[in-house]
Amino acid sequence: MNSIDFLSTVITLKRIPRSGWITHGISLPDVESVADHTFSTCSISILLTDLERRRGVRVNAERVLRMAILHDLAEALTFDISKSYLTYLGERGRDIKNEIESSAWKHLARSVGSVSISRDYAKLQKQYLSNITLEAQIVHAADSLDILLQILELRRRGYPAGLLKDLWNESVKKVKKTPVRSARRLLRVLTREGRGPVFQVK
Amino acid sequence: MNSIDFLSTVITLKRIPRSGWITHGISLPDVESVADHTFSTCSISILLTDLERRRGVRVNAERVLRMAILHDLAEALTFDISKSYLTYLGERGRDIKNEIESSAWKHLARSVGSVSISRDYAKLQKQYLSNITLEAQIVHAADSLDILLQILELRRRGYPAGLLKDLWNESVKKVKKTPVRSARRLLRVLTREGRGPVFQVK
Amino acid sequence: MNSIDFLSTVITLKRIPRSGWITHGISLPDVESVADHTFSTCSISILLTDLERRRGVRVNAERVLRMAILHDLAEALTFDISKSYLTYLGERGRDIKNEIESSAWKHLARSVGSVSISRDYAKLQKQYLSNITLEAQIVHAADSLDILLQILELRRRGYPAGLLKDLWNESVKKVKKTPVRSARRLLRVLTREGRGPVFQVK
Amino acid sequence: MNSIDFLSTVITLKRIPRSGWITHGISLPDVESVADHTFSTCSISILLTDLERRRGVRVNAERVLRMAILHDLAEALTFDISKSYLTYLGERGRDIKNEIESSAWKHLARSVGSVSISRDYAKLQKQYLSNITLEAQIVHAADSLDILLQILELRRRGYPAGLLKDLWNESVKKVKKTPVRSARRLLRVLTREGRGPVFQVK
Amino acid sequence: MNSIDFLSTVITLKRIPRSGWITHGISLPDVESVADHTFSTCSISILLTDLERRRGVRVNAERVLRMAILHDLAEALTFDISKSYLTYLGERGRDIKNEIESSAWKHLARSVGSVSISRDYAKLQKQYLSNITLEAQIVHAADSLDILLQILELRRRGYPAGLLKDLWNESVKKVKKTPVRSARRLLRVLTREGRGPVFQVK
Amino acid sequence: MNSIDFLSTVITLKRIPRSGWITHGISLPDVESVADHTFSTCSISILLTDLERRRGVRVNAERVLRMAILHDLAEALTFDISKSYLTYLGERGRDIKNEIESSAWKHLARSVGSVSISRDYAKLQKQYLSNITLEAQIVHAADSLDILLQILELRRRGYPAGLLKDLWNESVKKVKKTPVRSARRLLRVLTREGRGPVFQVK
Repeated sequence: MNSIDFLSTVITLKRIPRSGWITHGISLPDVESVADHTFSTCSISILLTDLERRRGVRVNAERVLRMAILHDLAEALTFDISKSYLTYLGERGRDIKNEIESSAWKHLARSVGSVSISRDYAKLQKQYLSNITLEAQIVHAADSLDILLQILELRRRGYPAGLLKDLWNESVKKVKKTPVRSARRLLRVLTREGRGPVFQVK
Repeated sequence: MNSIDFLSTVITLKRIPRSGWITHGISLPDVESVADHTFSTCSISILLTDLERRRGVRVNAERVLRMAILHDLAEALTFDISKSYLTYLGERGRDIKNEIESSAWKHLARSVGSVSISRDYAKLQKQYLSNITLEAQIVHAADSLDILLQILELRRRGYPAGLLKDLWNESVKKVKKTPVRSARRLLRVLTREGRGPVFQVK
Repeated sequence: MNSIDFLSTVITLKRIPRSGWITHGISLPDVESVADHTFSTCSISILLTDLERRRGVRVNAERVLRMAILHDLAEALTFDISKSYLTYLGERGRDIKNEIESSAWKHLARSVGSVSISRDYAKLQKQYLSNITLEAQIVHAADSLDILLQILELRRRGYPAGLLKDLWNESVKKVKKTPVRSARRLLRVLTREGRGPVFQVK
Repeated sequence: MNSIDFLSTVITLKRIPRSGWITHGISLPDVESVADHTFSTCSISILLTDLERRRGVRVNAERVLRMAILHDLAEALTFDISKSYLTYLGERGRDIKNEIESSAWKHLARSVGSVSISRDYAKLQKQYLSNITLEAQIVHAADSLDILLQILELRRRGYPAGLLKDLWNESVKKVKKTPVRSARRLLRVLTREGRGPVFQVK
Repeated sequence: MNSIDFLSTVITLKRIPRSGWITHGISLPDVESVADHTFSTCSISILLTDLERRRGVRVNAERVLRMAILHDLAEALTFDISKSYLTYLGERGRDIKNEIESSAWKHLARSVGSVSISRDYAKLQKQYLSNITLEAQIVHAADSLDILLQILELRRRGYPAGLLKDLWNESVKKVKKTPVRSARRLLRVLTREGRGPVFQVK
Repeated sequence: MNSIDFLSTVITLKRIPRSGWITHGISLPDVESVADHTFSTCSISILLTDLERRRGVRVNAERVLRMAILHDLAEALTFDISKSYLTYLGERGRDIKNEIESSAWKHLARSVGSVSISRDYAKLQKQYLSNITLEAQIVHAADSLDILLQILELRRRGYPAGLLKDLWNESVKKVKKTPVRSARRLLRVLTREGRGPVFQVK
């Protein structure tokens, strides 16, 4: 087995739509790919890292970026698992999502073609899921900030507030709880700009 | 609660893409909606019913059609659950899919706003899943025949055989096992036309 | 001739856009297919049937569903004939549309490959057009209710009221005249929800 | 009434799809607009005019270009009337298409807001339909050549020959009969390039 | 070399998106092609010509239409060069755009396969760029009016004013300065209709 | 000025199409965004880094990933500048592209809202362009490998070899020259799989 199998899978993320936007009524050609979202999460993660460092916090930037790149890779195999989907399983929903993604992850990591590299990738994915290290928390915060920025962008392009209000509130709540201070500061600017839950389009 | 809630949910199926085609590399605007597929399943079901009746078999057409209309309705809430998704759960995959869909189904049926009607719908959905009655078997056969017809259509429009071979073989296998004779006869015509697993585009 | 010809034609409805929405300024990827609309008409028809039965009215559900499935099938051959198109023929417009569709229908029914079945289908199509039986009236009401639900959905996703007002009013008028009481009741709920001709997006 | 009404109608041609391509199985986002086709017809018409002039033929270029611009304008109101549509009316099909378009044309010309200008436009449209003057024949030839060029382009991008063969042959036949010599010469180059009815994609 | 090379290039304009709309946040499937825009510019140019003539001004209609058809043809080779792009080159931006397009134009004109014709086309393109003759000014005015009409159309379909305000103001400013009186008159009607910079959607 | 301006710009890369694919005849909805490409470049870069490290080469992974994320960011402002575009400027083309992008880059970096961070980003962009350090060479190799993988993916989905041959050969040539050995090794596997310049679709 060689690394091409790994890369061929990676590349399919360019055309896997983020299913959450479809459920929220966004037109299909306006729905971003999982790759689009991952790129944005990487960019926000690096900025958060730099902002944290500037105020004296020590961050392992390499680890942050590796995690950001890998955090949704399993969706190349499992498709983007929408949350509405899991609500019908009640409390077990979250566990099952994690189980499916971890299993897919193992399959994916094996395709890298190197035992040591694939073991490293699997470790990072676990670290991301457990969300304890500062590095993982930065990626989680970036993941939510990307959703907020995307909502503002969709609002700006004419999508009504009603469609996106619940997703906005849910993501705001997540960032408010993050220990990453620069993320909370960005949130304050964002929500000020958004005036209220979701800002008015002029 | 009133029936409008039910209908508003039904209508969203028009824009839920059948995720299986995305995983198989079909371009997003060529991916049919779940509603598209259900319409076709209804049409094939009615034809199978009429062909069965013509050769003397008794079929409850009303039940067939009700089942065909309802068979994928839960996906309005759960999104179309791709099979690749479930393989990562091993044998439990199928069970979990059924559990999620049944749970979503109950939620949906309640929104009809009439206890007796919603109970009837729930019963039909169960009957479809258990796949024992001739009526359920007709809808299952129609569901697979629609996939085969769709593959032929995609092939005709230029999609390469390589993309669709596994799905073709899998669906052929299902129809071969159906007790519905007219379905097996249609299959023979289809595969003859398709010359080999998937026919050559000229 | 065999039934595959019939089914291959049926399947093309998945990619015939409902041209009326294009004329009304809806973006192409947001325009439903004729198959999408037919699926929804089937679902609404079955609900209306059940609601009518609950209040003691006798309805032949099988006939309703057959008619719903078949009611727009001719458009697989004729394309969706937009109404604006026909206004330029004045009073003859409606007649010509019916003539074209009946002629296409005969062609289509023949492709079923069975004289008796195709004769039955042709009879149903005629019954639908004449709109006298309760069963036909249910399908006509469902056809209009689907347009209203679709308008509400498009409004919810940000399309302005101005684009859709005339279509809304025209469809409301049709449902108001239907003898199917459950349809008129659904209309009342719908218009209440829509507050005025077409509701305000928040 | 003012000319803005006229121009607002003109502008809608940018989003009216050429329905013939849909019937032939081309993916919706690959289907050109009526405006796309008209632009191309204009460009080919001007080239044919220049080629004819170079070999000493007198052509009124202004009239050619006016006709080319106007030749499908009525479709802004009637939608693009697909030919398959008209076959179900037998021999009356062509007449009815002309009747509808002429009627729409009158409506459109009136919206120009100037009696003399709108009368001129109506005359040109008639001249185009009767296809007797050299100028009209140039535009008709350009209209067919655009279809052939579009087929070659679609072939180049991977669409299979089977989808487009009938349309190719039909358009070749039309250009073969045109009295415009430069058009027939272009056709010879085109078909040589296309090697056989529709060329092989490598 | 033969004229088919020229026409094959012309035809690609049908699928080159006008990049300015993408930068302004319009959804990809709603973005017109360069061919769409050119068709509309032709139609507006012919109307302006007729309106000018009616008030006694002498206009060479053939030259106007030739220029309108050719004015964006170079973009088949250079792609649509967005203005935002050039701002990063400061004052040299406009010159470089012209240099690129003139160079592409020469390449394109050569592909016509006739020295005299291609020389004529190149002369017209130069005349258009220098914008001194009345004919060139008519095409420039039509080019800007098309943008204004397209903005009104996008507004009507729900795009928010905020997205398009700067483009609206910039195009209004251009038409205000044109010596073509009928264009300024059309502008007055347009802006009245648009009530303020960009009109409110009801 | 605050970092939100920076992020809002970053996010627009999700809907900037990679214009090269449009010029090569790929259907618009199949054209990846610049964000899609950047995500893939990041993933390939990290893999190359790990493969290089495994064979004892020292690589600064953080710097690689930062460069990969930033390498096309300027296109959020300049749009994706297609190469065909620059050929019309002859040898100055490449310089002008670099000049435009550097200028846009400065604008973008300033929007980060921190002098030190933006200075770092600008340095990295310069390092990437000069292509001397191993880290820059890894990102350049990843950039080309992504194009090759994307071509294989498009071929697999039915796009003909003829469309993509020149781009394939050009990218192969680039990777062949890279000093990054793991990249050359990946290339060998890729081209073996692609059998000849671009592999045959079955």
